[in-house]
Amino acid sequence: MAIDLDRSAERIERDIETLAGSEFTLSDEAIRRYAYTPVYRKTLDYFARQLRDIAFEVYEDPVGTLVARNRPSGEPVFGVGSHCDSNRNGGKYDGTMGVVTALEVCRLNAELRLDLPLQLVSFLEEEGSGFGQMLLGSRIMLQRVREDELRESFRAIDDGRSFWEHAEEAGYEPARWQECIHVLDDIVGWIEMHIEQARVLQDTGNRIGIVTAIAGYVHADVVVHGRGDHAGATPMDFRLDPTLLMAETIIELERLAREAGKGTVGTVGEIEVEPGIINAIASRVRFSLDIRGPDDEAYRGVARDIAAFTEEAARRRGMEAELSQRQTLPATPLDDRILAALEEAAKATDEPYMTMHSGAAHDTMCVAERVPSAMVFVPCKDGVSHHPAEDADPADAALAAQIILNAIRELQKA
Amino acid sequence: MAIDLDRSAERIERDIETLAGSEFTLSDEAIRRYAYTPVYRKTLDYFARQLRDIAFEVYEDPVGTLVARNRPSGEPVFGVGSHCDSNRNGGKYDGTMGVVTALEVCRLNAELRLDLPLQLVSFLEEEGSGFGQMLLGSRIMLQRVREDELRESFRAIDDGRSFWEHAEEAGYEPARWQECIHVLDDIVGWIEMHIEQARVLQDTGNRIGIVTAIAGYVHADVVVHGRGDHAGATPMDFRLDPTLLMAETIIELERLAREAGKGTVGTVGEIEVEPGIINAIASRVRFSLDIRGPDDEAYRGVARDIAAFTEEAARRRGMEAELSQRQTLPATPLDDRILAALEEAAKATDEPYMTMHSGAAHDTMCVAERVPSAMVFVPCKDGVSHHPAEDADPADAALAAQIILNAIRELQKA
Repeated sequence: MAIDLDRSAERIERDIETLAGSEFTLSDEAIRRYAYTPVYRKTLDYFARQLRDIAFEVYEDPVGTLVARNRPSGEPVFGVGSHCDSNRNGGKYDGTMGVVTALEVCRLNAELRLDLPLQLVSFLEEEGSGFGQMLLGSRIMLQRVREDELRESFRAIDDGRSFWEHAEEAGYEPARWQECIHVLDDIVGWIEMHIEQARVLQDTGNRIGIVTAIAGYVHADVVVHGRGDHAGATPMDFRLDPTLLMAETIIELERLAREAGKGTVGTVGEIEVEPGIINAIASRVRFSLDIRGPDDEAYRGVARDIAAFTEEAARRRGMEAELSQRQTLPATPLDDRILAALEEAAKATDEPYMTMHSGAAHDTMCVAERVPSAMVFVPCKDGVSHHPAEDADPADAALAAQIILNAIRELQKA
Repeated sequence: MAIDLDRSAERIERDIETLAGSEFTLSDEAIRRYAYTPVYRKTLDYFARQLRDIAFEVYEDPVGTLVARNRPSGEPVFGVGSHCDSNRNGGKYDGTMGVVTALEVCRLNAELRLDLPLQLVSFLEEEGSGFGQMLLGSRIMLQRVREDELRESFRAIDDGRSFWEHAEEAGYEPARWQECIHVLDDIVGWIEMHIEQARVLQDTGNRIGIVTAIAGYVHADVVVHGRGDHAGATPMDFRLDPTLLMAETIIELERLAREAGKGTVGTVGEIEVEPGIINAIASRVRFSLDIRGPDDEAYRGVARDIAAFTEEAARRRGMEAELSQRQTLPATPLDDRILAALEEAAKATDEPYMTMHSGAAHDTMCVAERVPSAMVFVPCKDGVSHHPAEDADPADAALAAQIILNAIRELQKA
């Protein structure tokens, strides 16, 4: 079924531009919006009004995740949504465009009298801008946090007070956090739309990405202990220069990631050199490793191989290297049946689309633990994200709305 | 001629320990001493008292370099000395041990009634701790500064006021700075003793280094412009990661420096990565190059080759690299006749010594422009310098005093 794409694009653009207004962001220079701030409250209220207008019942879970459905509790529904908080130096599209597109799916469903059973979810604190914790709302929902973390460890970046205190002050009941899981009770499937946050769709000329998996990752740090000698006075043979070991590791990581294939990537994004002055050989370097991919075996192999390489190179150069893992999460394969329905719907539009994986993390990683799930990407200009210059085309979001709507229709028929 | 090395070592130790006392440093945790501070004034006064005790005439040049001589103006003298200011986080030995050893040479000359014509110089602001300008006193003396720099550009790290203002406030006459050159008028030769600031003497088991040249250097910066994409979402083939170009340059610099030989060294000591977060490919890196050696052709060849390598590697990877030179100074070959006399005197002690070059810069680089010059190094523990843990053995300094004294005797005979 073809929808009026222009009208959908206009509505999506109107929603996005409205939510980029000064009432909805803490900063003049960026979209800055996170849990329990007045601008976040207003954003939820905006979605709630729009959803009540099309006869959805709207509520918030015990910590503030927004839920809206057009069926009474207990009846099966299909889930759509994303998050509407932003990175602190964020743009208009990351997250918000996904919720707006989910809203457009709900609006089209009403307007076209399709009567599909739908539930929209807007997750809390995906970006971690409030409490430094990514995917916080969906992790709470899936019980991937501990109560002492919510009560004590997770503290506001702005004032250092606990998540618990902030949630209570905003009128929520964090003591009932374990009940958040019931948001998923009636959901039979889930589709999240999001901007791609990279340049693959743009550079390959595709308007739609059907996401078959979300990459797992290993985040680690390597510390190399060298010897901080005088850069002029110390002959080459008397040196223990840790920057050389780092350099070899950076080059080997690129080689290993390319060799592993299957979407595996490896990046050194943080580098610290001590003492960091032009005329001193470094005494110590620390650098980060970000190794990811949709294929657990492939990227974990790279993580193992780079650790062995660094250890061996350190031995060869007479230095010590310590590798410590910060965090790791397995890849999330998405649901074949929903993917097939999305691909069918995409094909029917005659617009260019591709299947791909997501290298970035999304709330869908949590949802997929309980619910058959999929994601749809739209291009963002030059891959720029988490930045005020973030840009995406409402026409692509309208196309995504049509594809998601038709996929849900097909899935509901079956 | 053999001296009483134990007694000289004791006197040297007493001087050094005295000048490490709380009256002579601004910090409890380090030796911190620089021009125009009360602790620097007291240090000059200490040397002046000691030198007057052995009948030296003491004065300060128009900016505060301490000069003491046992002959009237106009008569030829042999110069000895170093500097007695320190790095801000300095130790007891860098500079100060050289002046103390020069003082010991003067004391021995009096005690043993050798009647050698001597002039001791303690240079101002070798370390740049006061105004951020290395070798400032000797550069002023050799007219290697401009008046507008002294009046305007060179400003105190502590309060931002000009060198000129501080010098006047301390009772000097900076307007007469060009007369400082006259300090060298009667000097027929110059020997500076200094701690090595590296580990070559220690690791090769030598007590004395006879310095045949002071390394020249090129200081430069390389900026590589990449593209700051998402570390998870950007496939390996879509990346412009500037850390890879940096890594290749670091490894090539080591290879080129080793290949060049002749004491050439190359170091990357400063690295800045933007934005510097674990999950972002860097958009830009900056790193420093410190390339040195006693052979101008050799180290400058490395500087040229690494620039060409980086440019070519950038082209290959589709990025842009900008190399900009910060500063360069040619190598300073030292005087063969003085070196031969020092070597003769060292041989006569039966203690292990070696000839070597200095990788670090010293005031002698300036002095050597006008006066036949040489340097003598003594070991410092593990090569540690510019740090409170700096350590050196007064017995080695006493040995250096004997060698310098005997070398000057020989040179005066000829």
